[in-house]
Amino acid sequence: MNETKTLASYIVKNRWEDIPEDVRHEARRSLINVIGCAIGGSPHQAVTTAIRALSPFSGERTASIVGRPERLDPLHASLMNGISSHVEDYDDTTPKNYSHTSSPVSSALLAYASANRVRGRDFVEAFVLGFEAASRVGNVVYPAHYDVGWHMTGTIGVFGAAAAIGRLLGLNEQQMVWALGLAATQSAGLREMFGSMGKAFHPGRSAQNGYAAALLAQAGFTSGERGIEGPRGFAHVLAATRDLSKITTRLGVDFDLRENTYKPFPCGIVNHPTIDGAIQIHNEHHPDPASIVAVRLRVAPLVLDLCNQQNITKGLQGKFSVYHGAAVGLVRGKGGLREYTDEAVNDPAIKRVRELTTATGDPSVTEDQVNVEVELRDGTKLSKFVAQSLGNIHRPLTDKQLEEKFRDQAILVLPAREVESVIQLCWKVDQLDDVGELVAATVPAAAAVV
Amino acid sequence: MNETKTLASYIVKNRWEDIPEDVRHEARRSLINVIGCAIGGSPHQAVTTAIRALSPFSGERTASIVGRPERLDPLHASLMNGISSHVEDYDDTTPKNYSHTSSPVSSALLAYASANRVRGRDFVEAFVLGFEAASRVGNVVYPAHYDVGWHMTGTIGVFGAAAAIGRLLGLNEQQMVWALGLAATQSAGLREMFGSMGKAFHPGRSAQNGYAAALLAQAGFTSGERGIEGPRGFAHVLAATRDLSKITTRLGVDFDLRENTYKPFPCGIVNHPTIDGAIQIHNEHHPDPASIVAVRLRVAPLVLDLCNQQNITKGLQGKFSVYHGAAVGLVRGKGGLREYTDEAVNDPAIKRVRELTTATGDPSVTEDQVNVEVELRDGTKLSKFVAQSLGNIHRPLTDKQLEEKFRDQAILVLPAREVESVIQLCWKVDQLDDVGELVAATVPAAAAVV
Repeated sequence: MNETKTLASYIVKNRWEDIPEDVRHEARRSLINVIGCAIGGSPHQAVTTAIRALSPFSGERTASIVGRPERLDPLHASLMNGISSHVEDYDDTTPKNYSHTSSPVSSALLAYASANRVRGRDFVEAFVLGFEAASRVGNVVYPAHYDVGWHMTGTIGVFGAAAAIGRLLGLNEQQMVWALGLAATQSAGLREMFGSMGKAFHPGRSAQNGYAAALLAQAGFTSGERGIEGPRGFAHVLAATRDLSKITTRLGVDFDLRENTYKPFPCGIVNHPTIDGAIQIHNEHHPDPASIVAVRLRVAPLVLDLCNQQNITKGLQGKFSVYHGAAVGLVRGKGGLREYTDEAVNDPAIKRVRELTTATGDPSVTEDQVNVEVELRDGTKLSKFVAQSLGNIHRPLTDKQLEEKFRDQAILVLPAREVESVIQLCWKVDQLDDVGELVAATVPAAAAVV
Repeated sequence: MNETKTLASYIVKNRWEDIPEDVRHEARRSLINVIGCAIGGSPHQAVTTAIRALSPFSGERTASIVGRPERLDPLHASLMNGISSHVEDYDDTTPKNYSHTSSPVSSALLAYASANRVRGRDFVEAFVLGFEAASRVGNVVYPAHYDVGWHMTGTIGVFGAAAAIGRLLGLNEQQMVWALGLAATQSAGLREMFGSMGKAFHPGRSAQNGYAAALLAQAGFTSGERGIEGPRGFAHVLAATRDLSKITTRLGVDFDLRENTYKPFPCGIVNHPTIDGAIQIHNEHHPDPASIVAVRLRVAPLVLDLCNQQNITKGLQGKFSVYHGAAVGLVRGKGGLREYTDEAVNDPAIKRVRELTTATGDPSVTEDQVNVEVELRDGTKLSKFVAQSLGNIHRPLTDKQLEEKFRDQAILVLPAREVESVIQLCWKVDQLDDVGELVAATVPAAAAVV
């Protein structure tokens, strides 16, 4: 089989009518989620630092950066969008390969659309095709590829960005083969970067490199013809085992986008059931935090391997503390970005509840589950068993919850009225005459420009 | 061991006095070789195409491109220098790991030096350190890394460019650790690209990405601290077996640069003994090409696996034809770039000799050897046994031969007088006040600008 050519042909020949309405709606949901993450992550030091380092090398500043007042050329804007949308670990997850595919694909597309007039339905179609290209390449090499240490969001994202931008550029099949080949030969991203800015650099660079691959292919810059399946191509070189049929099986019929999931909380996914359960207790019983004398968690043993930090002072550490998750859920009734700041970690009420929380690993509890028991001063015991964690494939965030998540992040950067306007533009993105309008609406007023 | 930190510390703390004079001279030889290749490759369609595709995204055009009239920002200029210096497969080879290390390292440095004032000795020191960083990282993972399908010139070049530019930027040790980490996480390049423009894209992109890694690290963009040796770092993820001691053993004492080799002919290295032997017969006997009735080669069996094309019409095919190598050596007495054009391949005299040449694989002949026998119409037999091919580590090109190779390429782009002036600047590069002068001297007169 010639999988690169088959995939290229599909991307080039697809028509808007070929995308079912439920897939279009999941694209809108993915976009509202990832654009919210990009706005929420846009003030992060990683973004500010990358702009400071590379802005002097920007070409003509025709592109907006989501959530930021600075302008850059579209390739550099792609990089910045990729960093901001992934830096809080709050973006989406494709359960088939545990990649965060929307970030690299949308980051390139949003930069492109801010500098070039793109109709909404062309934009959404390119997003669906780019997402599918990246995710299918991921399915070919998962899990061997991930297990050895690749960060798939970076390694497969570059295929998605090349496919999406290549589609908007109108590449023919031969050019699309080259774009995918030039993507394959730039595929990179090591899990050794986790815990540093390097992690969010991956979707950024893959967005930028995929975009550049499409530009080069359009100009006639050639690559090997079998970048994905060739004996020295991506699938062979970057994975000890692989299944190339996952590129072609039911291509254009099944869409990985249908199974995309969205994190309700900006932290490691194994903490999610605990936060979810604690919020439910908060909402149902409104216990006075000062009255809590003990919190007992029964969690999957993996949770204690990964998130057993209790004596913490930094927001970033909070992301790796199941105790902090229980405390913010009980005290604040939520677990958004503002619950993972240094301020929140040092909030005396949260600190007190965190420190009186205990956790026991229980092999009968799955990683989607938790049992939370709260004991109050008067002896009352409140408890909640979570059987399926909010946000997983069996209990997806509703459209309304996605809006709430968006608001929670966007309000850090935009006035409330503009937040609502971006939400409305996201829901009707495929009807827009010019998606640049949506990107522009994420940019804070010029007064904010430093 | 913490190999990334050890390497970073070495790069940051080295002094000019720590580099022995013989290593400095080999740096000058490597530079004259690679700059000649960059000039010779600069008119290639791959370079023209990449400039056409990416020039609209260039930042402020402060940098020169070796051999070209266009100007770009230094990151894009690094990319173009990398493509031009490798595209003819004429650059250097490090025998320890068969990489072409000078291309990515010098490509970034020449772009940097054309846009920033750099003293010659700082430039040469950065080149030596960058070369050593890349080559030692290559030694860690060779041969498993190459065998699975990585193109090492790309995968290790990014470390060399990051080290060299990081040194010129004056990074401290922590920043250099990050620069090497950001290099590690961008390491890419698949052998599947061989035979396409994608191959030369690898040293170009690694020059550009290594340069960007150093800029990001300088601004405080963090990476994992153990990008090379960490459990999910470069050496583990990109090679099935590895020897990390090759980073640290006799660091600052042994220099891989001492063993660098330079190709006398712009084609696959297994053809070199044949061309060499044919040229020797030409020079010693001056046989009239029309009088040749048979040419018989005894070659290593691998030669026939790789270079057995005889019925050819394109210059690129000539690079994979041992018969063409014999013919150009006998007919023209040389095997330079002009012997690998479409015109040369279709030259009737060369075609005739190529077609009456036969080759026999002989396991007793090594890949550095050949026996060439030429039979003339009058029954005379001329023969030559080559025991060590010209250009290999045991029979290196002399300084004079490097100059000849340089002239042969540079004359395609520059007037003869300017060719000599660049040669003189290369030999005294470490005495220059401003290496920008050298880069500027490679650029054809403004009249040539399109």
